[in-house]
Amino acid sequence: MSFPNLALRTDLYELTMMQGYWASGRIGEWGAFELMFREVPEQGGYCIAAGIEEALSLLQDMAFHDAEIEYLRSLNLFQSGFLTYLRSLRFRGDVRAVREGSLIFPHEPFLEVSGPLAEVQWVESLLLNTINFQTLIATKARRMVDAAYPASIIEYGLRRAQGPNGALWASRASYLGGCIGTSNVEAGFHYRIPAFGTHAHSWVQSFDDEGEAFRTYSDVFPNHSVLLIDTYDTLRTGLPLAIAEGKRLEEKGARIQGIRLDSGDLAYLSKECRRQLDEAGLSYVKIIASSDIDEYLIQDLKVQGAPIDLFGVGTKLVTAFQDPALGGVYKLVAIRKDEHWSPRIKISSNPAKTTIPGRKQIYRWEASGRYLGDCLATMEESAPLRMRHPDITYKQTELIPEQLLPLLEARLSGGNPVRRGDTLDESRDWVQQEVAKLPMEHRRQANPHPYRVGLSDQLFEMRQRMIKEHQV
Amino acid sequence: MSFPNLALRTDLYELTMMQGYWASGRIGEWGAFELMFREVPEQGGYCIAAGIEEALSLLQDMAFHDAEIEYLRSLNLFQSGFLTYLRSLRFRGDVRAVREGSLIFPHEPFLEVSGPLAEVQWVESLLLNTINFQTLIATKARRMVDAAYPASIIEYGLRRAQGPNGALWASRASYLGGCIGTSNVEAGFHYRIPAFGTHAHSWVQSFDDEGEAFRTYSDVFPNHSVLLIDTYDTLRTGLPLAIAEGKRLEEKGARIQGIRLDSGDLAYLSKECRRQLDEAGLSYVKIIASSDIDEYLIQDLKVQGAPIDLFGVGTKLVTAFQDPALGGVYKLVAIRKDEHWSPRIKISSNPAKTTIPGRKQIYRWEASGRYLGDCLATMEESAPLRMRHPDITYKQTELIPEQLLPLLEARLSGGNPVRRGDTLDESRDWVQQEVAKLPMEHRRQANPHPYRVGLSDQLFEMRQRMIKEHQV
Repeated sequence: MSFPNLALRTDLYELTMMQGYWASGRIGEWGAFELMFREVPEQGGYCIAAGIEEALSLLQDMAFHDAEIEYLRSLNLFQSGFLTYLRSLRFRGDVRAVREGSLIFPHEPFLEVSGPLAEVQWVESLLLNTINFQTLIATKARRMVDAAYPASIIEYGLRRAQGPNGALWASRASYLGGCIGTSNVEAGFHYRIPAFGTHAHSWVQSFDDEGEAFRTYSDVFPNHSVLLIDTYDTLRTGLPLAIAEGKRLEEKGARIQGIRLDSGDLAYLSKECRRQLDEAGLSYVKIIASSDIDEYLIQDLKVQGAPIDLFGVGTKLVTAFQDPALGGVYKLVAIRKDEHWSPRIKISSNPAKTTIPGRKQIYRWEASGRYLGDCLATMEESAPLRMRHPDITYKQTELIPEQLLPLLEARLSGGNPVRRGDTLDESRDWVQQEVAKLPMEHRRQANPHPYRVGLSDQLFEMRQRMIKEHQV
Repeated sequence: MSFPNLALRTDLYELTMMQGYWASGRIGEWGAFELMFREVPEQGGYCIAAGIEEALSLLQDMAFHDAEIEYLRSLNLFQSGFLTYLRSLRFRGDVRAVREGSLIFPHEPFLEVSGPLAEVQWVESLLLNTINFQTLIATKARRMVDAAYPASIIEYGLRRAQGPNGALWASRASYLGGCIGTSNVEAGFHYRIPAFGTHAHSWVQSFDDEGEAFRTYSDVFPNHSVLLIDTYDTLRTGLPLAIAEGKRLEEKGARIQGIRLDSGDLAYLSKECRRQLDEAGLSYVKIIASSDIDEYLIQDLKVQGAPIDLFGVGTKLVTAFQDPALGGVYKLVAIRKDEHWSPRIKISSNPAKTTIPGRKQIYRWEASGRYLGDCLATMEESAPLRMRHPDITYKQTELIPEQLLPLLEARLSGGNPVRRGDTLDESRDWVQQEVAKLPMEHRRQANPHPYRVGLSDQLFEMRQRMIKEHQV
């Protein structure tokens, strides 16, 4: 996919600040920014990091072209020397990040960008736009996949998505999160995600007779036929005609794959359909349900024993309907002066919004295949011995250094890749492995127990010292 | 902007149905589909039609390229003859639509596509993806602009938008709805929307001293300086340093434009800032507020008398946070057989989901510069004399035919434009004119009175007859 104006995928204030750094002779000074969020959407227990591979690839393609420079000139804000500087600008900084598909938690710096101030400022909006949304959707998808298991989920959201990338990236992130495929052909083409789909109400309406619509469809796709049975009346016409069609196909040596319910009481209808299909000897015919489905409804349908094999989920998944934005932020944590990194802080009257200063590593504590907590530490430490709650001074936990895994790995150095990126399928496998290691108390939908994220002694003390300095 | 895989911006079932029409010899039969929605998001009183010009332009660019055909072949679903047919397929149908920026209401067919069945089926997902989202955001923006008046709104949402088009199209639709501009440079470039922005917290943090950060910025942009005053402590350091900077600039013959508040109690802080700015002789300095703003908060801030001149609105606007999808649908309403259009219906146990069959015109009743209601009528009628509630049989209103304006106009004929499209500024002006004609009872945020949308006698009777036929 072509993204022709990547250099402009930024907020105007990034460019005015860049001119500010340029004009005040600070263009070569280095800064380090971290990407993190403060709350899991829908009060969930975890997020799935997504969009990282795409973001790394976009960073390498950012460049200003002539038409873009002329546009900036027309704003009467920028000096010509600065525009000349932009014309040859590329991102030449360093990026460290967790693996795409990793579990991430509030306050963790899951991606860090360091480099010349102007460059690290420039890429802020693009990184947030790419990663916030894909992380949001991968997380939502994972919640749904967990709720539906052992039934599967197909993403159906193109028509209600927030624009074409809202759809494409949602398809990708949903697959990453564990959906088995998408209805979106563009996503199938770009990302080689399995594509699914059979027919709509309009197909049935276009015929004079519902049975003729079913027969015609199955004749064209004798082994890929999922019949939508609620165009006129699900139980009085749709189901009996679908059963008749199933028997007719059997005589020809073929089988319909399934029936689809797109309205009404899905619990009652799925049970009645299953019963009648089984009685007719069509126990191999799957029941597919769509119509405003989310993880709460899925869980409820399971409690009611609805025999649904496959859910088609659109709007609620691709827009993350109940909480449609991840509040990821990009915060300056350090400035390099004379080869030394000097930590920076942003203070807020709301303690959760006061940043954690300095460059860091995340250490994940794994014991017996279970994740027990994460400890943020300064770059100078190897593996911390203890982690402390960021704000509540008496909360602390001893750590076992041999059980700690560092999560941030170098991905770009001087703007160039350090290693090959993971494929979508590799990242999807990684999600499965990650989620399996997360204790159930952090995975449940309702009121999950918060996963512990703490600070090393050294980081804790540095933060407290800096808060005090700014309060004087 | 390049959209290279438009032909694949569709759901797989559209393509399987297309092969179904092709294989069953119905490829040349014409169908008519209508785009409409059933509920206004957030229980609002109206929607602003948006995305129509963009959708018309995309329709004309849809075409399958070799790589896309090869991808479809790899799915093992499609016959070679059908793929050959796709390779030369273009959209050659007709489109009628309301003007972009028009007020639209539930159940109104605000865009109609007619043409060969395969083609009108193919374009469904692209049209819905384009128009649902832009209509959602233009409507949300209009609600905010109304709430803020006489203060203005700038859209700031790139970083939290649902992907790059979620941002670009949100910027466009927000401007259409009445925002004065955007922070998104890509949107400024593509749509020539005014771009705004000055500096972030990171600018202040990157300096050792907050006052030095303000001075440096204002020296680079002596007349475009909006100082963000909440990096450390709004009233103890940010405001006094901004006032000092304002006075310093005055001595140089320049003026800071404004100060920005991005956290805390915006009502209290804005009053305190206004008071101190005025006392310092800086009454020309504007107060700009951002931080999770939506129309409800804006209305509340106005009730509290907060002296805010300009709101920067991000997440809540560009994702339409409280109701992030417009449920627009695309329904088959007629099939043409032997030169005659035969109406089609979709029945639902939920009366609001039973469609209104047949091709139609919308007549808007305007008297003394006020819109009083809309009547849907069949294509055979000129102007209806009476309109009836779609479901409640005793509700009806007499109409004055001379006061009725037809809203749907021909836009594409045989796939080609009938007239030049409206520019974004023309559509934005049209929104202002439209909203001014809508009585306040339909515009208010809380519990707006429903605007009347009825059916002509002829349409009402045809629908009732078809419902009965399917119930037999």
